[in-house]
Amino acid sequence: MAYLLLSGGLPEGNEGRMMEALLVAASEHSVVAPSVNAARFVASAGVPLQAAVAAGTIGLGDHHGGAVDAAALALLEADGSGLPDPEAAAAVCRRIRDEGARLPGYGHVLHDPDPRAGRLFEVADDLGFLGRWCKLAQAFEAAAGEVFGRPLRTNVDGAMAALLLELGLDPGLGKAFYVMGRAPGLVAHVFEEQTRERPYRDVGWENVSYEGPDARPVP
Amino acid sequence: MAYLLLSGGLPEGNEGRMMEALLVAASEHSVVAPSVNAARFVASAGVPLQAAVAAGTIGLGDHHGGAVDAAALALLEADGSGLPDPEAAAAVCRRIRDEGARLPGYGHVLHDPDPRAGRLFEVADDLGFLGRWCKLAQAFEAAAGEVFGRPLRTNVDGAMAALLLELGLDPGLGKAFYVMGRAPGLVAHVFEEQTRERPYRDVGWENVSYEGPDARPVP
Amino acid sequence: MAYLLLSGGLPEGNEGRMMEALLVAASEHSVVAPSVNAARFVASAGVPLQAAVAAGTIGLGDHHGGAVDAAALALLEADGSGLPDPEAAAAVCRRIRDEGARLPGYGHVLHDPDPRAGRLFEVADDLGFLGRWCKLAQAFEAAAGEVFGRPLRTNVDGAMAALLLELGLDPGLGKAFYVMGRAPGLVAHVFEEQTRERPYRDVGWENVSYEGPDARPVP
Amino acid sequence: MAYLLLSGGLPEGNEGRMMEALLVAASEHSVVAPSVNAARFVASAGVPLQAAVAAGTIGLGDHHGGAVDAAALALLEADGSGLPDPEAAAAVCRRIRDEGARLPGYGHVLHDPDPRAGRLFEVADDLGFLGRWCKLAQAFEAAAGEVFGRPLRTNVDGAMAALLLELGLDPGLGKAFYVMGRAPGLVAHVFEEQTRERPYRDVGWENVSYEGPDARPVP
Repeated sequence: MAYLLLSGGLPEGNEGRMMEALLVAASEHSVVAPSVNAARFVASAGVPLQAAVAAGTIGLGDHHGGAVDAAALALLEADGSGLPDPEAAAAVCRRIRDEGARLPGYGHVLHDPDPRAGRLFEVADDLGFLGRWCKLAQAFEAAAGEVFGRPLRTNVDGAMAALLLELGLDPGLGKAFYVMGRAPGLVAHVFEEQTRERPYRDVGWENVSYEGPDARPVP
Repeated sequence: MAYLLLSGGLPEGNEGRMMEALLVAASEHSVVAPSVNAARFVASAGVPLQAAVAAGTIGLGDHHGGAVDAAALALLEADGSGLPDPEAAAAVCRRIRDEGARLPGYGHVLHDPDPRAGRLFEVADDLGFLGRWCKLAQAFEAAAGEVFGRPLRTNVDGAMAALLLELGLDPGLGKAFYVMGRAPGLVAHVFEEQTRERPYRDVGWENVSYEGPDARPVP
Repeated sequence: MAYLLLSGGLPEGNEGRMMEALLVAASEHSVVAPSVNAARFVASAGVPLQAAVAAGTIGLGDHHGGAVDAAALALLEADGSGLPDPEAAAAVCRRIRDEGARLPGYGHVLHDPDPRAGRLFEVADDLGFLGRWCKLAQAFEAAAGEVFGRPLRTNVDGAMAALLLELGLDPGLGKAFYVMGRAPGLVAHVFEEQTRERPYRDVGWENVSYEGPDARPVP
Repeated sequence: MAYLLLSGGLPEGNEGRMMEALLVAASEHSVVAPSVNAARFVASAGVPLQAAVAAGTIGLGDHHGGAVDAAALALLEADGSGLPDPEAAAAVCRRIRDEGARLPGYGHVLHDPDPRAGRLFEVADDLGFLGRWCKLAQAFEAAAGEVFGRPLRTNVDGAMAALLLELGLDPGLGKAFYVMGRAPGLVAHVFEEQTRERPYRDVGWENVSYEGPDARPVP
């Protein structure tokens, strides 16, 4: 159903199962995600479940799944260059490095290597989706290490970007895997907050520091 | 994964497939839903995909999937009465009628009978979930016609409520099927709006009427 | 303008200045509010300013300004009883106590007495709004101490409720003062997060405890 | 209060009154705004007031107030060029035209001239804020006609941009006037929808056209 809604076409083979794996990869990440904390704080204020989930969904921003679109565009840019994959990937990496940006879809602060990427490629292999775009993504991994001067392994967003293109979907749908896939995780967090935590969650003064001016007289 | 996140337990049988059917039933309903229009208007104003989907998600309110919780509670109320199903269902129907309320999960303005309910029960039968709660839901259908004086067939929310309980989930999660299941539909609407429609969607003056005071001088 | 939009009428006297005082009272409360934290977490994920503010706005829930509506309804209930104020207020207090609920608009965990309530009544006195509803609110304060067995002073929500009625506004607009008034505070928090904090705000593992099952093998 | 929260400083003169005029200019625009329709559709689905307002707030997107930031940046770019105002404005106009973009803050489909811009400059004159940035904005109006080949009058966003800078605020706060100022309008629309309209607002089939494939058999 998700494939139909995003592509307009009925799955002809394993598209549905590949989509499912992508959604599962995006479904949950504990409280290490701003979206989850937003949803829990809002839930603690006494709102309906869907409203708290929506607050979390807003938080699936550029720093939180936003790299999938960008990584897909980088793959398309390399593909359009007409160069062999290693040269094409290296050229795109250099352009991005020279603009002072990070390579979207490669490297991860916490997960290195990112186990979700490896598992997605395994599933893709089983389901017949380890094709042209996945191979190009691997060429980027090889090129990135050289261009950026340190190992940059494909992370979950990079793998999603390659598989988005394998499924024939539009790069503009990069964030869709998180928007659809994270919904169950957000529902679970919100429900837990509603049923197991005290209302009106507090950030805790010990986590707050104030740097502003001292008290001022108001005219 | 959705079952694990909502129940805390790993599926032991067909829970995952039953959950999938429930999510598919909630996934899309054309533009006949306030949530979809909210998402499309917001998308037309120029915002990231996830933010427009969130606007739609907020709109999964009491009149839009909210009957699942209430219908599940009605089933539990009947079950707790200790009466045989027909009497138990009739007693709950009478209480609701006497309070001037509608029976949640039964009857539908557009879909009568609601094909989603019938199909969900078929799938439930195939997967081994046509159990105690589904039978009680059918007892409500029989009792409702008599108590409310007109045929009230089980709608999609009523079927979801019964299957929520068959899956052992909490009634407070009634709206979760819509929150999770409608995400792909909202993503598709937003993406279509972003890529195929003009920015800044207009409601059309021909759809607007004004009933307020005439122009007034402002001091 | 806010008075015109909420009442439909042009201010004839000091309604605008009274409204302004109510909005100022609601405008900011540091990070001691779930709404603010929701907005900041979402902002840190990389979204447009208005989307992060919206996440915070969702969080102005039943536990966060929701008492204004309820307190206004309590005042109306007492007023409708036909009893003298002290007896009317005491009767409503007893009904609420007997239902096991808290008296909306009275008492505050942090602020006792709540300086915002006192200041609002001072402003109301200056502007000619210290009328029938404010006096009734004070009768509730006197009755509440006796009925609930401890001092329960009028808090900011209780003062807002009385002044909502003094302004002739509908009790259903109780939360409106927070929705309108907190917008500047949320904008300021979001802008500070966007410009002075690191992206992808983290809750900090030291603030997290896990109570679930141990790792389980997945079939 | 809004000035304090956005600038960090106490107003020393008429900053508060100038801010108030900017908020009033942004407060309401009938249903000719996607944000308003989003809020009303969501309200019709049965959600708390603040959640429906939040759905509208999300819709204050790039096409809906987003020009204020961009117009302020254009003013700063011209100012930084060191050229006299007419040449500086013309150079920025040419750059924007050559990139195929529209000049932010100038021209309006419905309002030509935009009465809000003229009135804001009048108020600014009264309050002592018709300074360097307002004059530069007028130089843009003159240059724009020549560079873009048709009259492009300062619209409300253009006036807001100039006054944002007159107030010493950060260009990144451009959308803040709408986020804060439109809150009363959204509250009023939501409350009207909740109290005067039928639940579950429908877009009306006569407003819908379908262009997709015919019914297809599903395997």
